[in-house]
This record gives sequence, structure tokens and C-alpha cells, in this order.
Amino acid sequence: MSDALSLAADLIRCPTVTPTEGGALVLLAGVLSRAGFECTRVDRNGTPNLFARIGPKGATRSFGFNGHTDVVPPGDMARWSVDPFGGEIRDGMLWGRGASDMKSGVAAFVAAAVEMAPGLPSNGAIVLTITGDEEGDATDGTVALLDWMEAQGERMSVCLVGEPTSVEGLGDTIKIGRRGSLTAHVTATGKQGHSAYPERARNPIPALARLVDRLSSHRLDEGTPHFGASTLAVVTMDTGNPASNVIPAETRATLNIRFNDLHTGASLEAWLRDEATRMATEFGVQIDLAVRVSGEAFLTPPGPLSDLVSRAVEAETGRKPTLSTTGGTSDARFVKRHCPVVELGLVGPTMHQVDERVEVAQVGHLAQVYGRILRDYFA
Amino acid sequence: MSDALSLAADLIRCPTVTPTEGGALVLLAGVLSRAGFECTRVDRNGTPNLFARIGPKGATRSFGFNGHTDVVPPGDMARWSVDPFGGEIRDGMLWGRGASDMKSGVAAFVAAAVEMAPGLPSNGAIVLTITGDEEGDATDGTVALLDWMEAQGERMSVCLVGEPTSVEGLGDTIKIGRRGSLTAHVTATGKQGHSAYPERARNPIPALARLVDRLSSHRLDEGTPHFGASTLAVVTMDTGNPASNVIPAETRATLNIRFNDLHTGASLEAWLRDEATRMATEFGVQIDLAVRVSGEAFLTPPGPLSDLVSRAVEAETGRKPTLSTTGGTSDARFVKRHCPVVELGLVGPTMHQVDERVEVAQVGHLAQVYGRILRDYFA
Ligand SMILES: [Zn+2]
Ligand SMILES: [Zn+2]
Repeated sequence: MSDALSLAADLIRCPTVTPTEGGALVLLAGVLSRAGFECTRVDRNGTPNLFARIGPKGATRSFGFNGHTDVVPPGDMARWSVDPFGGEIRDGMLWGRGASDMKSGVAAFVAAAVEMAPGLPSNGAIVLTITGDEEGDATDGTVALLDWMEAQGERMSVCLVGEPTSVEGLGDTIKIGRRGSLTAHVTATGKQGHSAYPERARNPIPALARLVDRLSSHRLDEGTPHFGASTLAVVTMDTGNPASNVIPAETRATLNIRFNDLHTGASLEAWLRDEATRMATEFGVQIDLAVRVSGEAFLTPPGPLSDLVSRAVEAETGRKPTLSTTGGTSDARFVKRHCPVVELGLVGPTMHQVDERVEVAQVGHLAQVYGRILRDYFA
Repeated sequence: MSDALSLAADLIRCPTVTPTEGGALVLLAGVLSRAGFECTRVDRNGTPNLFARIGPKGATRSFGFNGHTDVVPPGDMARWSVDPFGGEIRDGMLWGRGASDMKSGVAAFVAAAVEMAPGLPSNGAIVLTITGDEEGDATDGTVALLDWMEAQGERMSVCLVGEPTSVEGLGDTIKIGRRGSLTAHVTATGKQGHSAYPERARNPIPALARLVDRLSSHRLDEGTPHFGASTLAVVTMDTGNPASNVIPAETRATLNIRFNDLHTGASLEAWLRDEATRMATEFGVQIDLAVRVSGEAFLTPPGPLSDLVSRAVEAETGRKPTLSTTGGTSDARFVKRHCPVVELGLVGPTMHQVDERVEVAQVGHLAQVYGRILRDYFA
């Protein structure tokens, strides 16, 4: 059994549903300390985080890995074929919550880092930032680690996030960015009345319907070289009025925008407020917006880091990776503020599902890819 | 105390929440029989109805009155100042559920009919149709009475419905028709998906929003000489999707149309289906409609009947009545299929409310107006 595989199984046995530490970071700190890493717990507001470095603090070449040990809840236990926190190996698979997202990824980069450690050049360092809150609000996880690093003068030259990015075969997809995500809750308020006398009421529904139509049919952009077109989806419209003879006073809608690097959360919010104000004026109703930007769009343009990672993948797997920016958000959005970042990890079709599992062979293989990346980086 | 007032109080003491007979029709049949009326109970499917005629069946001049003895529930008993079924007279008012809608109206036309009976010409008849289900579904009430009359060869030349039509002073408003009412439940169905990948889903919300916008902003007509413009009110739009990262498969809306005699329920339904089909095609979603026409628009154009009633009102009250078609539906919509019909009754601001009551003076006054209408009609 590879070091990465046995470490992954041990991590799965730690019950780390967000934000519970569950022994995972203690376990990793032990493994890393024994290999010579300087380990520091950087907990903030109850969120457990681990910082580990080997090599000098001021190293000019510092390779970072980022990941998380927390997991989403197992859900309906009765539907699992195995103990979700058993770390069982069966039928060539490692089973359990976090097997693909992303305890095996963490185990793989820890194993690769430990193996690389003795061969580091004098100006080289490996920095690991591992959080116990990525699946939750993520306000005191990777962000806390980066804040602490900044305060301490710690740095990474580049960083690889070990999330499961592969689609069909290990290494086939590297993420070099992610779209941003904005959610807006829209409330239109008019004046209640009887539906036989609409002239005495002020129905907010037509105003919201036209706003929804305008926003839905607006084309935000045509995409960029590295991003698809931004999208806007109105996901719900609700009034909750059971009486067909009553015109309601209020109605609501929620929309979600996934946007590329032609926009920012602020520019989109300004656009939404502009459209809402226009419609409110046109219909004589009030339209309020509550906007939340859960992540800005970010991109590490193809260059030295993605080239390095792509070459290592191709050498180890024979696959030429696609550079992608699809999918939801990840902690790479925070790392991006600090240094160039890419994401590369397992094929993860069962992540967040019942019977989450990963091919045993992939875990060791991923550690080899990570190992080659490190060797090439420090060569 | 006038006959009408004491009869109204007696009727209030009958607990006739729809569809309970509560002794009201038995009481009326007794009063009418003693005055020489031929009374027949025309109950259908448990709904109590009373038919009464004085004068020959084949009379060429047959004046009809229509009304109902059922009432809406009293609601929160604790909020009433009096027993809602006590028929109490206090402070110059007759109190109780049905005082204005419309036991006093029934009592007034019964009193007027009884008084007129001895003076009927040989070719004259008075026909009373009184139902115990107007406030409910009304499927076996006035409709059943009219069906029975048709089968029996009974007829009315004209009919007056005694609903509380007056707005500020007794007789100030006569209704000569009512707008129709149509309710449509619209369901748009697409394909569920993740809001990060709207191209893989088919969101039904933009289609329904545009349909709602189109329907809401369409001007159905400019009104007619006797009707205001038809109105369309979308009263609710609901999806019920709590997840901002999920594009829903289905969304719904309900709209209510109040329409004048330029339209029929069928013509409006055809228009709605046409618009829905166009939008479904445009957006590639399915749009289903469930349409219910609760009443067609109807009108008894100003003429001999409204002239007769107006003159009597003016003679008795000094008020020149307005001929109106506003308000909700009433059983006049059924009577209209049978003969010319108008509606005239009390000022009813407390109808359907707690502490429903009517001025004592108005009840006797209404009976006098009805009496003059009968005398003029048979003169
Ligand atoms: Zn993850
Ligand atoms: Zn009524």
C-alpha cells in the first residue's frame, strides 16, 4: 500500500464533518513534523487550520499545496454500503466520505511533499495550507491561513489546489480559474387590492415579470479566451398568494449569475440595481435587492505554472490536460490573491454522494504526478 | 314594526350557513302559502330551494324576484357585539349575519309580494325563486330553480334580484349586468439543472415571466357604454425552489380576468392558449393552462325594466339611480339566461363582516320601493 493510500484511509477515519477537526489535522501535523516540516495550527473562530513548511521561510522558490480535510455530512446512513468513516478498501476502491473530495488529494500531496523534502534545494521550500472549513462558509479557513501567512511574512511562489478536477481520466483537466458567482434576492412591493378592481391596487407581479424577462434575455458577454459566456439564471419566483381574487402586495425572485473575468461582483450588482430602478419607476412599485457575491471570477493565465503541471501530467499519465475554468467555486479563489494558482486532482464522480469512493490506483498515481511536479519545479 | 322588518329578524334567527336550510325556506313557504302563493320546494343534491307563484301559471305578465337565504359563516364569534343569529334590533339597526346580504332583501320582496297579491290583474303573476346556495358553489341553487321552471313551463317576464346593490343611499345604484370572471392556472415545465450550467437545463421561469409580462401589458379593450374596460390581474407566481444553485423544472402562475360583454370565457381562453403556445414554442418549454370561467359577462341593456325600477326608486327615495355593472358575480348571471334581470337592494357595507347590520328604516323603505315597482308593473 502506498503512503498516500494509507494516509488517505487514515484521514477518512477522522470524522471531520465541517467544521469538526476530527483528528485529521493532528494526524497530518504528526506525519509532517516527523518528516521535518515546521507545523503551525492557525485556527480562527473555531475553524481548525494547519500551516506546514519545509525549507527556509524566505525561500525564493516556494511551492504551495492547498486542500481541506473537512467533508460534507454523509446524509442518509442507511443508503451507504460501507461505514462512511471506515476508510475501507474493497473491490479496488477506497470508500468513505472525503475519499474523492478531498482527503485522498491531501494525502497525495502530503506524501509527495514528504518524499521531496530531503531533495529540496537551499533556496526551495514547500508550503502546505490545509483547512477544516472549505465545505462551509469558508470565512475562517484558507482565508485565515493566507492572512496569517501575510502577517508572518510567509509566502508561496505558486500554489496547487488538490481538488478533484479530473473528468474521465486522472489529470485530463486542470483548472486555471473559476467563474464568479453572485446571488440576488429581488423583492417587488406594490399595494394589495381586489382583483376585480386592479386600478385601485398596484400589482408588483408584472413589474417583476418584466424585470425577470429583461435580465434573463440579456446577454452578459460572448465569453473570453479562457471562459465561457457568463450566465444568469432566475431560479425562483414566489408570491404565495392563494386567493385568486386578491392582488398581492409583494412578490420575490432569486437569480444566480456565474460570471467570467469581464465582470466583477460590484459591476454586476450595479447593473442589476440600475435595471431594477428603471423597472420600479416604470411600474410605480418598489424593488429591493439583496446581493451576495460568493466568489469573484479569477484566472491564472496559461504560463509557467500550468505548463509545469501539464508536462508532469503528460509524463505520468500520457494525457494532455485541458485547461478549464468551469464548475463551482473553490478555495483557489482566495489563493489567487496571493500567487498564481491551478487546481489538479482526482476523478471525482461520487463526491458529496452516498458511497463516495475512489480507485485505489488513482491515489498513488496522483501522488506520483504531484511528486513529478515538485521535482520539475525544483530542478 | 313593518312586516318586512319582523320577517327579516325571523329569517336571521334561522341558522342558514350555506348550504343549511335552517328553517328559513320553511318559514317563507308558510308566510307565502297563507297569502295564497303556490309553494314548491325544488331541492337538488341537498341544496334547499323554494319556488312560489301567485297568479296563473301561463300569465303573460309575470314579475319575478330572486334571492337567497343562505349566509356566509359568522367567523370569529368573539368579535361580534351580538348573537349573529339573534335577529336583535338595537340602536335603530337590525343586527345579525344576513341582515344586509340578504335576508332583509328577501323579507322586503316577500312583504311587497304578499301586499300586492290581492290586487293582481288576471293576466298577472308574481314568481319568487329563493335559494339556500348562493354563497357556495351555487350549482344547485338558482340554476336548479330555473331548470325546474323550464321543465314545468313556469316563466318570469322580468326579474329583480334583491342583492344589496346600493352604495351610499337606498336605491342609488341598480345593477343591470356584471362583468364575467375567468381564472387561469398556468404551469410552465422545462428541465431541471444546475445554475452553473444553464445551457444543460431548460428554465421555465423566463418563459412564464415573459408570458406574464405580455398578458399583463395587453389592453383587452377600452370598455363599452355600460362596462368599464376588462382587466387582467396576475395574482401569484410561484416556484418554491429554495436552492439558488438549482434551475427548477416547473413554475406556476395564476391570473384572474374580469371581462365585459366584448368577450366570452371561451374567447378569452382561446386567446390565453394562443399566447401560451407562442411562448412555449419560443422558449422550448411546455405551458399548460387550467381555465375556469366562474361567470360570463351579462347585461340587460337599459330599457323597460331598468326604467320601471328607476322611476319607482326616484318616486320613493328622491334618488335617481345609477345603472352599474361593477362588482363581483351574483345569481343574476343565471337569471339572465331566462329573462331580463336587474338587481336592486340595500346599502350593504357590513356584508360578510363581523357585526353585519342594516338600518331598520331601510328594510321597510326597500319593501315600499319593491311594492311600488310591482304596482307600476301591473298598472
Ligand atoms: Zn473539495
Ligand atoms: Zn348575496
